[in-house]
Amino acid sequence: MIINSLLDLDLYKLTMGYFVFKHYKDVPVAYALTDRKKMRLAEIIAVGELIEELNHVMTLRFTKKEIKYLRGTNEYKSGMFGEDFLEFLSKLQLPEYDLSISNGDFILIFQGKWSEAIYWETLAMSILDELYYKTLLRQMTPFEQRVEYSYATLRLAEKKRIIEQQPGLKVIEFGTRRRHSHDWQWQTIESFMGLSQFAGTSNVKAAMDMDLLPVGTFAHELDMGVSAIFRSRLNRARSQEVLLADEIESIHKAHQFVLDEWWELYGNSLSVALTDTYGSEFFYQNFSYEDALKWKGVRHDSADPFAFGERTIKFYEDLGIDPKSKLIVFSDGLDAKAITALYERFFGRIGTSFGWGTNWTNDFRFNTLSIVVKLISAAGWGTVKLSDSPGKEMGSIEDIRLFQRLSRR
Amino acid sequence: MIINSLLDLDLYKLTMGYFVFKHYKDVPVAYALTDRKKMRLAEIIAVGELIEELNHVMTLRFTKKEIKYLRGTNEYKSGMFGEDFLEFLSKLQLPEYDLSISNGDFILIFQGKWSEAIYWETLAMSILDELYYKTLLRQMTPFEQRVEYSYATLRLAEKKRIIEQQPGLKVIEFGTRRRHSHDWQWQTIESFMGLSQFAGTSNVKAAMDMDLLPVGTFAHELDMGVSAIFRSRLNRARSQEVLLADEIESIHKAHQFVLDEWWELYGNSLSVALTDTYGSEFFYQNFSYEDALKWKGVRHDSADPFAFGERTIKFYEDLGIDPKSKLIVFSDGLDAKAITALYERFFGRIGTSFGWGTNWTNDFRFNTLSIVVKLISAAGWGTVKLSDSPGKEMGSIEDIRLFQRLSRR
Repeated sequence: MIINSLLDLDLYKLTMGYFVFKHYKDVPVAYALTDRKKMRLAEIIAVGELIEELNHVMTLRFTKKEIKYLRGTNEYKSGMFGEDFLEFLSKLQLPEYDLSISNGDFILIFQGKWSEAIYWETLAMSILDELYYKTLLRQMTPFEQRVEYSYATLRLAEKKRIIEQQPGLKVIEFGTRRRHSHDWQWQTIESFMGLSQFAGTSNVKAAMDMDLLPVGTFAHELDMGVSAIFRSRLNRARSQEVLLADEIESIHKAHQFVLDEWWELYGNSLSVALTDTYGSEFFYQNFSYEDALKWKGVRHDSADPFAFGERTIKFYEDLGIDPKSKLIVFSDGLDAKAITALYERFFGRIGTSFGWGTNWTNDFRFNTLSIVVKLISAAGWGTVKLSDSPGKEMGSIEDIRLFQRLSRR
Repeated sequence: MIINSLLDLDLYKLTMGYFVFKHYKDVPVAYALTDRKKMRLAEIIAVGELIEELNHVMTLRFTKKEIKYLRGTNEYKSGMFGEDFLEFLSKLQLPEYDLSISNGDFILIFQGKWSEAIYWETLAMSILDELYYKTLLRQMTPFEQRVEYSYATLRLAEKKRIIEQQPGLKVIEFGTRRRHSHDWQWQTIESFMGLSQFAGTSNVKAAMDMDLLPVGTFAHELDMGVSAIFRSRLNRARSQEVLLADEIESIHKAHQFVLDEWWELYGNSLSVALTDTYGSEFFYQNFSYEDALKWKGVRHDSADPFAFGERTIKFYEDLGIDPKSKLIVFSDGLDAKAITALYERFFGRIGTSFGWGTNWTNDFRFNTLSIVVKLISAAGWGTVKLSDSPGKEMGSIEDIRLFQRLSRR
């Protein structure tokens, strides 16, 4: 089976999972699969295999060893996960999924309590990825398969060669969600072992297996879920008529709540803020001097990274904060050349590290899959995400318009 | 272990083995390892591992299934191997080896009855090859190893692409003696499966495992051994003083004996004569019209193959034999480009097929091994080989001079 451990997911699912467990344990949510490329996946991947893999995940539990590993993880903060949460995890069974097929696409929905459904995201993505590439490989002879792996291996060697040339670089493996396969991801990580530039992996199981630093903070879903919950409360409290000003205030409050409670939970150690959920202009207009001063830095996840870096430096400078004391984690569609170019551009001006995904763990000659599993509703309220890249927006048309008004451009 | 079947050798060991069994069963012979590149192999390969592998071969016996496979092999001639020979093989245990180390080199000698010692050659070579490359690989990380295999795989794919473009080509896998490893040889063969250009393999075990045509005729050692035996008899019969003319006559007789008795044993099916044991000029001066007419063709194994092809065509034309009815098997240091160039040069002029060795089964980035295991004496008499390439001669200085006088240039 593809997933053989509930730890075979991104650390941010657990760091966000603890946040959610603390604040919104029983809030009903829904996640949905989106195939950005509309590849008619249901005509490629055998539905029986998908069901088998998803069902298998539901039989998995965090093992004692895995819980001990989480309890013992102290690079960020000793006892970063409370005993109540570890106790909860040790009993966790992932909630049911809803799978149907429509017009060649899989409709895959995960509904349940936020504290339980949250773990499906990268597990489901890893399953769909691997089934997809397995299906393509099955159409080849064993030799043709080896040729594909050989191309991928030599591309990997070339990446390593490029990265090795920059002694100060820090790269983190972020490829779980877009990996070619579990085994290949492990091999790509293994290939970078011992490199001073290799700073860790987002995959907790890989970190445990290969004694690496597990890396992750939070994702769009935290802002998206919390703002949906805030709006839902506002609307429930005020019955029908809600003033636009109140609505906007509640979104601002939700955004600040995430920052404040995240700091409360993990302090400085995981204080890297994702900037583009409502567009980075919104973020910089609302990221206070106090927060900017104490938070380690920000994460870039859409639009031009060079422009973002310049904008971020200017943001800190305008506040009188030395950018050299701050960090940008780049994590959007990186390859080795982009990484070294960004590193060189910002060297000596602001700290950088690089969350390197698809291009590291899945640089094959295949037509790549581009799927996401996104939080679509929380507390019965539709979620909204803008991002800095056109076309990556999510939510109802009205909601997107509303959120676009948040940043006073 | 590297060798797990006595069939994991070249077919010519068995076709020559049957010849030897018929005529020279108990003649004492010796084979010796030569490292053409003088790489001080004993400082690279662990002697303990070599001993373990050689000892393991001595525990092997032809299995019932393997004997049945040989009995049932009928592509050349039904019942090509006599029951007496198969009975002999089924009881065969390979004779002892003598291994010592001198100045960084392995001195590896196989002595015994010709009918028994004959089987060591490619088995010992395959062992030394694989131990050598294994040792190099052990000095690498798993990823570095995968990079080497990836290069080799892509080179193999490129070979396949080139060969596929020539529909009429016939290539035969001849790489057992210089293979990277057993497993890699099997993979290289597997990669060509289904290609109309792929006509078989010299490795009998590979032919059995993958249901291919096993291919092979005879090698230098047959001429070398038989001429040594003829000269030994002449000298024993005449005590000390042997006339040069008699000596030369005995070599000619030995050469003709091999041709006649080979035809007697296998008829037309395996009638491809190796031409360069005493230089191809000697061969063409002594290959009679009757033999030239009935034998399928000749095998090229040293010096310029294009010149050899032209010389061969002229030879047949001079005799009034249509070269188009004849075959040249090229088998010396071929690569995909040389194969297609030779094929194109001789297409429509003379038949061609290509025994493709090292470059097919062992095209890695490593410094390659270049070893041979050659018959050095038979019936107490030193063997001689000239070949068409300077530096490939074997034998005592006097003997080489004597044999060089054989062809009236």
